[in-house]
Amino acid sequence: MSRSGLPDRPDGGAPAESDLTLRARAARAIPGGLWGHMRAQGLPPGYPQFFSRADGCKIWDADGREYLDFMCSWGPIVLGHHDPDVEAAADAQRRAGDVMNGPAPVLVELAELMTRQVAHADWTMFAKNGTDATTVCVTVARAAGGRRKVLVARGAYHGAAPWCTPSLVGVTAEDRAHLLHYRYNDVASLEEAAAQAGEDLAAVLVSPFRHDYGVDQELADPGFAQAVRRLCDRTGAALILDEVRAGMRLDLAGSWEPLGVRPDLAAWSKAIANGHALAAVTGAERLREAASSIYATGSFWCGAASMAAAVATLRKLQAVDGVARMRAMGERLRDGLAGQARAHGIGIRQTGPAQMPMLLFDDDPQAELGAAFCAEALRQGVYLHHRHNMFLSVAHRPEDIDRALEATDRAFSAVAALRG
Amino acid sequence: MSRSGLPDRPDGGAPAESDLTLRARAARAIPGGLWGHMRAQGLPPGYPQFFSRADGCKIWDADGREYLDFMCSWGPIVLGHHDPDVEAAADAQRRAGDVMNGPAPVLVELAELMTRQVAHADWTMFAKNGTDATTVCVTVARAAGGRRKVLVARGAYHGAAPWCTPSLVGVTAEDRAHLLHYRYNDVASLEEAAAQAGEDLAAVLVSPFRHDYGVDQELADPGFAQAVRRLCDRTGAALILDEVRAGMRLDLAGSWEPLGVRPDLAAWSKAIANGHALAAVTGAERLREAASSIYATGSFWCGAASMAAAVATLRKLQAVDGVARMRAMGERLRDGLAGQARAHGIGIRQTGPAQMPMLLFDDDPQAELGAAFCAEALRQGVYLHHRHNMFLSVAHRPEDIDRALEATDRAFSAVAALRG
Repeated sequence: MSRSGLPDRPDGGAPAESDLTLRARAARAIPGGLWGHMRAQGLPPGYPQFFSRADGCKIWDADGREYLDFMCSWGPIVLGHHDPDVEAAADAQRRAGDVMNGPAPVLVELAELMTRQVAHADWTMFAKNGTDATTVCVTVARAAGGRRKVLVARGAYHGAAPWCTPSLVGVTAEDRAHLLHYRYNDVASLEEAAAQAGEDLAAVLVSPFRHDYGVDQELADPGFAQAVRRLCDRTGAALILDEVRAGMRLDLAGSWEPLGVRPDLAAWSKAIANGHALAAVTGAERLREAASSIYATGSFWCGAASMAAAVATLRKLQAVDGVARMRAMGERLRDGLAGQARAHGIGIRQTGPAQMPMLLFDDDPQAELGAAFCAEALRQGVYLHHRHNMFLSVAHRPEDIDRALEATDRAFSAVAALRG
Repeated sequence: MSRSGLPDRPDGGAPAESDLTLRARAARAIPGGLWGHMRAQGLPPGYPQFFSRADGCKIWDADGREYLDFMCSWGPIVLGHHDPDVEAAADAQRRAGDVMNGPAPVLVELAELMTRQVAHADWTMFAKNGTDATTVCVTVARAAGGRRKVLVARGAYHGAAPWCTPSLVGVTAEDRAHLLHYRYNDVASLEEAAAQAGEDLAAVLVSPFRHDYGVDQELADPGFAQAVRRLCDRTGAALILDEVRAGMRLDLAGSWEPLGVRPDLAAWSKAIANGHALAAVTGAERLREAASSIYATGSFWCGAASMAAAVATLRKLQAVDGVARMRAMGERLRDGLAGQARAHGIGIRQTGPAQMPMLLFDDDPQAELGAAFCAEALRQGVYLHHRHNMFLSVAHRPEDIDRALEATDRAFSAVAALRG
């Protein structure tokens, strides 16, 4: 039985196995024990690899330990696990039909909803992975003008396909042949990269803010965002906003809407369906023909249950003013952490939007202090990340934040002790 | 109300809209009205674009018309829609947790099951799209030896990413720089392409049989399959079997197992989770290190509900001898069609494995006879495809095949009338 009193295996199957046993089995059946960003090897000691259950803003590991969660499944969970409205919508659609010979009517409903809600959007299409969405955006931009070069910010993550993956293992030089790099928030470097691309500039790919792994986040300088827009207007290149990570947490009309800058294309995934697998591309009218000219598809891209989940998710985010609630909870957490750090005499940096918190320690280049902090918070039942931005959800309530702050106060004590 | 007596919208929402109205709305909200292989534009007149419901081997379009289905959602539906065992397993896992901060224990269970069941497999990893799986295979093959060239059969479909998509719109020459082509079942052309690749040969990518769009299917010549294996053994290249379309319909241990040829890597998707979005890569021991060295990931790749669905799907296919049942039903259909064609004096070609039927008409280069045949079958309540291979499922029973044959007899009459 888990700490919640529910059985570890709600299906009444075999008794739950420990995280350690599961890891040992995974090490044989799966290369490296797990792929990609969910490998627990990079996390501080004590972090679990396997999870047995989730509900609201709480998660349970395979050993039945309960945590208050601040990763939200690396972004997708925006309303909390098992949001009743989202699950009811997905269940109803699933009972009717999910993956069929063509889409369900909900495809149109969702495309219209996205097109209405997202300020720059005149059309929408869907896929499964964030990488699908960024890849479609780049392909559409290239199709529009027959140009090839794409500017990307150095260190930014835009997916795991050969053309964009952060690792070059198994990737050819040709896969990256038409990427050129600029520094985020640096207009001069942007113009320099654009000059290198010359007449061959197809697109500028940019995140709503700088949320690179392991370094301080940077909000977009409004002047930078406007310079990207002007560059694209001047050259005819497409401004592609990669909303995969930040989308629907900053502004439901688009993360750069508060800056008054509208992209030509935007890639969405993660939070748009509260954990159901879905991605989307929104685009401006001038790219509609190009978008209809490319070939992009997948066996499950018309899956209707995830689309019904997305309709419910977007409507609920609107109805409850989810962005404001996440921001308020993020600020409550941020203020609390700032006060605790001061009280403990520990220098920290909290960067980026409050609803996507990043916490790094001063004088901690190897993130050892961060690791000690997070390991102690974990022992106190709070799941944080020491090098990746975290995520708030609408399910986080003031009492959850306050409970988290009790844990982080002890975690700061552990850091203080470590520093002697 | 649909013909089944169930409401068109089981969620009690707005009244159902017609296919035509939905298409008009989609034409505004979605580029071209829909992307990829599910656009109904390429189908004969009368085919619906939107589906409201599915159950077993039956589907209902947005206008409530019921069809006996032979596309199985383009492959994923292998046990029939709403298989109770699969849905119960997926529901139980979903109630526990689906997309979480890491995988659920079912990841290990499924990886072990795939590794046991698939003869060549020493390990397994998971993704969402078939394209993810073929891309991971190619990346692993390149990572293993630092070589770059990949041989693919001319006209074969291996996914929709820039490196493999059948359309070159929005794709750069560099995306395809390291592809070399051979003719399926042609050992000389294979050796020629390999010679072109020389020391840079990373992989041979091959489908279990030739299932290209619009042309007769070809089973793999055993001598060809063995030649691919020998070539890879001789050169150290990886033999990648693209099981995305055929996987779990020909042989649960791998589609080339009856030929005695085992690949080094195989890409799976579509049928492995009976319609739940999932893909997998299986691999041989010698590629384990390479597979753990690459970076490939996605936000939903650890989604546990689809994995629970896959465990239930694979177990049930085994328990009911699903492959034999699909083959028997495919042969019943094939024999019936052959007899009808003879009786009507119409020349047809039925190619490929019976459980993935392809029906083409003689002297029909534009598939006009095929279109007339399928349009009439559709009017008779049977959903076929005139240019793409179709799919049987375990839900197809003898009485369904016999009912389909009643429709196709009339469809042959329509073709005979058309030919005068």
